[in-house]
Amino acid sequence: MEKRRNVSMSVIKRLPKYHRYLEGLMKNDVNRISSKDLGEKIGFTASQIRQDLNCFGGFGQQGYGYNVSDLYNEISDILGLTRKYKVVIVGAGNIGQAITNYTKFDKLGLSIEALFDKNPKLIGIKIRDIEVKDIDTLETFLASSQVDIGVICVPDKYAQGVCDILSRNNVGGIWNFAPVDLIVPDNIKVENVHLSDSLLTLTYLLNEK
Amino acid sequence: MEKRRNVSMSVIKRLPKYHRYLEGLMKNDVNRISSKDLGEKIGFTASQIRQDLNCFGGFGQQGYGYNVSDLYNEISDILGLTRKYKVVIVGAGNIGQAITNYTKFDKLGLSIEALFDKNPKLIGIKIRDIEVKDIDTLETFLASSQVDIGVICVPDKYAQGVCDILSRNNVGGIWNFAPVDLIVPDNIKVENVHLSDSLLTLTYLLNEK
Repeated sequence: MEKRRNVSMSVIKRLPKYHRYLEGLMKNDVNRISSKDLGEKIGFTASQIRQDLNCFGGFGQQGYGYNVSDLYNEISDILGLTRKYKVVIVGAGNIGQAITNYTKFDKLGLSIEALFDKNPKLIGIKIRDIEVKDIDTLETFLASSQVDIGVICVPDKYAQGVCDILSRNNVGGIWNFAPVDLIVPDNIKVENVHLSDSLLTLTYLLNEK
Repeated sequence: MEKRRNVSMSVIKRLPKYHRYLEGLMKNDVNRISSKDLGEKIGFTASQIRQDLNCFGGFGQQGYGYNVSDLYNEISDILGLTRKYKVVIVGAGNIGQAITNYTKFDKLGLSIEALFDKNPKLIGIKIRDIEVKDIDTLETFLASSQVDIGVICVPDKYAQGVCDILSRNNVGGIWNFAPVDLIVPDNIKVENVHLSDSLLTLTYLLNEK
């Protein structure tokens, strides 16, 4: 499997959905599927599926379709799920705790190395056996540990500061839950979950005339 | 202000971002801004901003730019934030509790009417003074209350069932945190927050060659 350069963000955003549906097919012991049938399940056209997967070199076979577990494994590999990730969560409030407690992430290969907060009431407590550390020790911690992903769950006004600490300590990926658009160097990847933005999309749709 | 039909989803998805930035400008006492300056702040081109806002009838004035609070109010109105929403949260686990505790949503006009779960350990406890009710009483509750938005925070295998209960009881908007694509009648609006999909986008980007 060879990755192509310049795959568009909309293709990238569809890959986790393929992964999710293929996992479901495997659970239901489906071994083989045509692009038409896969498309009907996912809600894409057969041609879109072929185009998307062609960005990474194809994988289907004319007249046979896709071998489900092979395609699942290829997509897992493309999504970087054949390796492990060391994670720190900054902000141990509601969202930070919810992420820490979400065991699905373990299965995806994430290992939460540490949690940080500035609230004295939270510092020292354990969430799933992971102690909440003082945020003032974040930089020292990062200097001595190789961390791949930092999850930012602090209030918006602190988010850029936390982001700067993460990025200057070689944390390559930032999963940002704060409602701000972070400024990072080119080599740092950011994925945002802006809950309020998502909610406002829903309120818009509810009022669409 | 007149809403146009057929505004594309990508324009709709940008509106909350305008709302967020305009709120920031108001907090900093900025009264007036050009589309160029607004674009530089948000990271859009001036022309994209004019195009986006023209979908709803414009609002800017040649040579003057935008009046910040007027534009904020117009966008609030377009986003449906000039009314209130009654909300139920189904699933009082990590995410359900995090959403319940997120006071920002109050400010956006959401009022959480009830929480539901099937776990006997959760039923009866209070989260922000809202009692967790038995999920078996969800349908009866909805039959006697007008609820606008249902938040689905249950495990994936229960999500469609909960969605069916919500939609047959006239809950017009569904904010779905379960990692499934729900099937709903045309009159029901769904907005998804697929956390795992978002995380896998990040792991992809970290491994992009």
